[in-house]
Amino acid sequence: MKEINSEAIQGMIPKRNKESHKADYGRVLVIGGNEAMGGAIILTASAAVYSGAGLVTVATAKVNHTALHARLPEAMVFDMYDADRLLKQLATATVIVIGPGLGLSSESLAILKSVLASVTKEHYLIVDGSAITLMAKYHLKTPIAKTIYTPHLGEWQKLSHLKPTEQNETLNIQARKELKAAVVLKQARTEIYFLDEVWKNSQGNPAMATGGMGDALAGMIAGFSAQFKNNRFAIITAVFLHSKIGDDLAKKQYVVLPTQIIANIPFIMKEFSTKFIF
Amino acid sequence: MKEINSEAIQGMIPKRNKESHKADYGRVLVIGGNEAMGGAIILTASAAVYSGAGLVTVATAKVNHTALHARLPEAMVFDMYDADRLLKQLATATVIVIGPGLGLSSESLAILKSVLASVTKEHYLIVDGSAITLMAKYHLKTPIAKTIYTPHLGEWQKLSHLKPTEQNETLNIQARKELKAAVVLKQARTEIYFLDEVWKNSQGNPAMATGGMGDALAGMIAGFSAQFKNNRFAIITAVFLHSKIGDDLAKKQYVVLPTQIIANIPFIMKEFSTKFIF
Amino acid sequence: MKEINSEAIQGMIPKRNKESHKADYGRVLVIGGNEAMGGAIILTASAAVYSGAGLVTVATAKVNHTALHARLPEAMVFDMYDADRLLKQLATATVIVIGPGLGLSSESLAILKSVLASVTKEHYLIVDGSAITLMAKYHLKTPIAKTIYTPHLGEWQKLSHLKPTEQNETLNIQARKELKAAVVLKQARTEIYFLDEVWKNSQGNPAMATGGMGDALAGMIAGFSAQFKNNRFAIITAVFLHSKIGDDLAKKQYVVLPTQIIANIPFIMKEFSTKFIF
Amino acid sequence: MKEINSEAIQGMIPKRNKESHKADYGRVLVIGGNEAMGGAIILTASAAVYSGAGLVTVATAKVNHTALHARLPEAMVFDMYDADRLLKQLATATVIVIGPGLGLSSESLAILKSVLASVTKEHYLIVDGSAITLMAKYHLKTPIAKTIYTPHLGEWQKLSHLKPTEQNETLNIQARKELKAAVVLKQARTEIYFLDEVWKNSQGNPAMATGGMGDALAGMIAGFSAQFKNNRFAIITAVFLHSKIGDDLAKKQYVVLPTQIIANIPFIMKEFSTKFIF
Repeated sequence: MKEINSEAIQGMIPKRNKESHKADYGRVLVIGGNEAMGGAIILTASAAVYSGAGLVTVATAKVNHTALHARLPEAMVFDMYDADRLLKQLATATVIVIGPGLGLSSESLAILKSVLASVTKEHYLIVDGSAITLMAKYHLKTPIAKTIYTPHLGEWQKLSHLKPTEQNETLNIQARKELKAAVVLKQARTEIYFLDEVWKNSQGNPAMATGGMGDALAGMIAGFSAQFKNNRFAIITAVFLHSKIGDDLAKKQYVVLPTQIIANIPFIMKEFSTKFIF
Repeated sequence: MKEINSEAIQGMIPKRNKESHKADYGRVLVIGGNEAMGGAIILTASAAVYSGAGLVTVATAKVNHTALHARLPEAMVFDMYDADRLLKQLATATVIVIGPGLGLSSESLAILKSVLASVTKEHYLIVDGSAITLMAKYHLKTPIAKTIYTPHLGEWQKLSHLKPTEQNETLNIQARKELKAAVVLKQARTEIYFLDEVWKNSQGNPAMATGGMGDALAGMIAGFSAQFKNNRFAIITAVFLHSKIGDDLAKKQYVVLPTQIIANIPFIMKEFSTKFIF
Repeated sequence: MKEINSEAIQGMIPKRNKESHKADYGRVLVIGGNEAMGGAIILTASAAVYSGAGLVTVATAKVNHTALHARLPEAMVFDMYDADRLLKQLATATVIVIGPGLGLSSESLAILKSVLASVTKEHYLIVDGSAITLMAKYHLKTPIAKTIYTPHLGEWQKLSHLKPTEQNETLNIQARKELKAAVVLKQARTEIYFLDEVWKNSQGNPAMATGGMGDALAGMIAGFSAQFKNNRFAIITAVFLHSKIGDDLAKKQYVVLPTQIIANIPFIMKEFSTKFIF
Repeated sequence: MKEINSEAIQGMIPKRNKESHKADYGRVLVIGGNEAMGGAIILTASAAVYSGAGLVTVATAKVNHTALHARLPEAMVFDMYDADRLLKQLATATVIVIGPGLGLSSESLAILKSVLASVTKEHYLIVDGSAITLMAKYHLKTPIAKTIYTPHLGEWQKLSHLKPTEQNETLNIQARKELKAAVVLKQARTEIYFLDEVWKNSQGNPAMATGGMGDALAGMIAGFSAQFKNNRFAIITAVFLHSKIGDDLAKKQYVVLPTQIIANIPFIMKEFSTKFIF
């Protein structure tokens, strides 16, 4: 495994072109947030915006629209149960996140199936949270899109059929191959399984062990994927900076909240985009 | 009485295990917030989240869902009048708070009775605010759960049947025995009545005498109970840090708001979890 | 006229008693905020909370409840068009503010009339904004409560029937006498007309000339009236500190927002409650 | 072209008169925000308020009212689809912004047509976002009001019928003449086309290339137009300070959010209103 650390991510964050505009930084579509878990999709969308995605649109249950706008006026929103609208938005998106707070209902499943059937090989697709559980439960296949799964250990068990004791590098690599996707395996030291290499994070701390932390990471991966030409760099950097912020904040905090991680993204990106130019 | 002070709480805040994840820090279910008092339950839930509880779910009137998510995307939410849903959530919770802003209606009473009938001896149950008044008014019995009452002096009178002049240590101990629960008796210098010992806070100030301050304390007790192996430590530390933050802020503020207390919880926990290691 | 300045307000802010609790700091009922002007009542309620009122309840149009809770979980809320509820709340309130964003509709008038008919001589009643216009338009009489009008110059013209050129100290004193109330006449240098003396503010600046600034002042007068034994001190201090914060902020800001004034109230109260003890 | 820089804007920000009140700083009416794009109009309204406009009223879809008040209690609000109300508000406004998040539906078009037919030559009218697209698509004529278009390059192509390669100073001047309006042509270095002169910004950076940035600029132009006697100064200063804040923030941030720009407006206005008095 390669270690994800300050040196490794050097040069991975691209410098923005002076003549660029928001269309150059992608259109992220974030899908999730049912009637009970609207906060999850607000976190994911916020992380995408604060990561620098050009435009962020949120598909979520209507009951969540007001809270989303109250926290994040930078995002657009529509009802995720509106199937026609969802298809139209998928067509214009460059990066899609599905899963945070999506839930496990038949409606949630229908939305997921619709996305899987509609994405193209041009799309980046991040499959997170409830969507991973649904993929596993209904034996759904990884679609044609450039797909990234972001399971925690429990979700990985469902997805890979590997018991906790079997979840070693070799078997994980094998399971990833069958999935035909990148896998961000969230844990104390998060691991990333690509086609031909495995990376392991050197950052992260237990103050980050709190609800919503994964939703924020999914949004960062989406935001970075929308901007970085090299998608591996996007994923590696997102995993690193998410936990690096957490480590920095944990020096003064017993627990670190996802909203605090999100607020710090623009600053840490700046720090690591300029730090190591030598 | 033992004094609650910096020395006494030394070592009470557990160090988080490096390999831990959010499931290790409990599932808190916060029940309350009717159509008029939604703010109370938002404060309690926020305090639980900022105290480091692993997952926080809020049962509250539908009208409060949007404000909750707008302030606290880290929490999940459902309608507290949905009896089936409430039972399901009770089954998965490790710590329950009932009462902040719950109200005194027949619907509020039904919710309380349902909780009392459903909790097990594994649950921690914090009974606060309206729920205390309802317990007293309808002569409801402390359930099988590990129960903690958090009355202010007026609520304690209803619950203990002790007149203000009778509320001395001896009679309070007697009243607590009949309740078969821990009692956090909120006042200028809050007292905690356990089975075999009484603690008295050394902190707190009148700048904290404002609406919602007790709701925040209930959330802290819940959040700490979800994480600390030793529940007495959880209660003692919550009472201490709640008023310690208040004392710190009152150096520069004439009045201290509950939302300000809440924002400072992660920082003061860090301070007191590391300060006295010698 | 007496000048309101740092020296004059010395000793006016009471020291809180160590054994006190929120019930000692009053119950403020804030009435206003129709379908278009909900922000006004949110500002007034926020100012009352941040001024240290013990409990703050807001009567406002239902459409404003969520925004209120999202900004200010410390307050309680109910529908201002619910006449029975309004009467019940009036009975328990110690200080009432009516007017910010109330509007001029027949429903607004009905609410105002209901309040005027229900208040007792024990109540402090602050009549602000739309309520002043309604009082003038419908020739309503100052009620039996200890009443404080807070007109700006245009509203004062309607209420006093004095043309701008006639608004001098002598005629204002005469007009106030007919009103049988204290008058806070808002302007660049705000004047306060009591029964037997007139005060003129020495603070304030044009960066404060922006919408909502008066709503915040009304909330401060209410919050202070709920806590100070001497109501003249409450009014004088509120007028002074409101503009003193504005002057402090205007050193670095071209415009000062009411929400910024409100956030600073606890700090400036502390500063002026301790500064001049010698 | 004249360069917009620190020296050029010297003296353009007026000093507020000591005796002034909010009515001296204009009434801004902000129209936009459909069911999907409420965030856009919240940003525009916020920028107008933080720019110091005396009163700001927002016409937007009902679904956005709560989020607006939760973020910005300083503003008033009504349903933009209420045609009668819109006409009444237009009559009292001094500055109108139409377009941010307005959408392209037939209802959006009807609102735009109603505004174009109702404005007088006394009004300042800022045409932004969706409204520009609608003007171009339906060949609507610039109305009698003092009109300012704020297109980005793609919108300018639709409005001017100039291909990207044709968008040079000479042809832009010609196209502006046919429009009979000022044009703020947003790009990396924004240009302003007036009747007889062209200005080019010296500030701005690609960290600002994110959704909502233009909505904030439209609000600043509106807020400044409401206060500055010289409207060219208002437009030039708004363009400059918007990007100057962005440049300042980008020293520490990889991406700069519109909400962050807005929060800094009062401070940078102060800085540049006093800096160069010599």
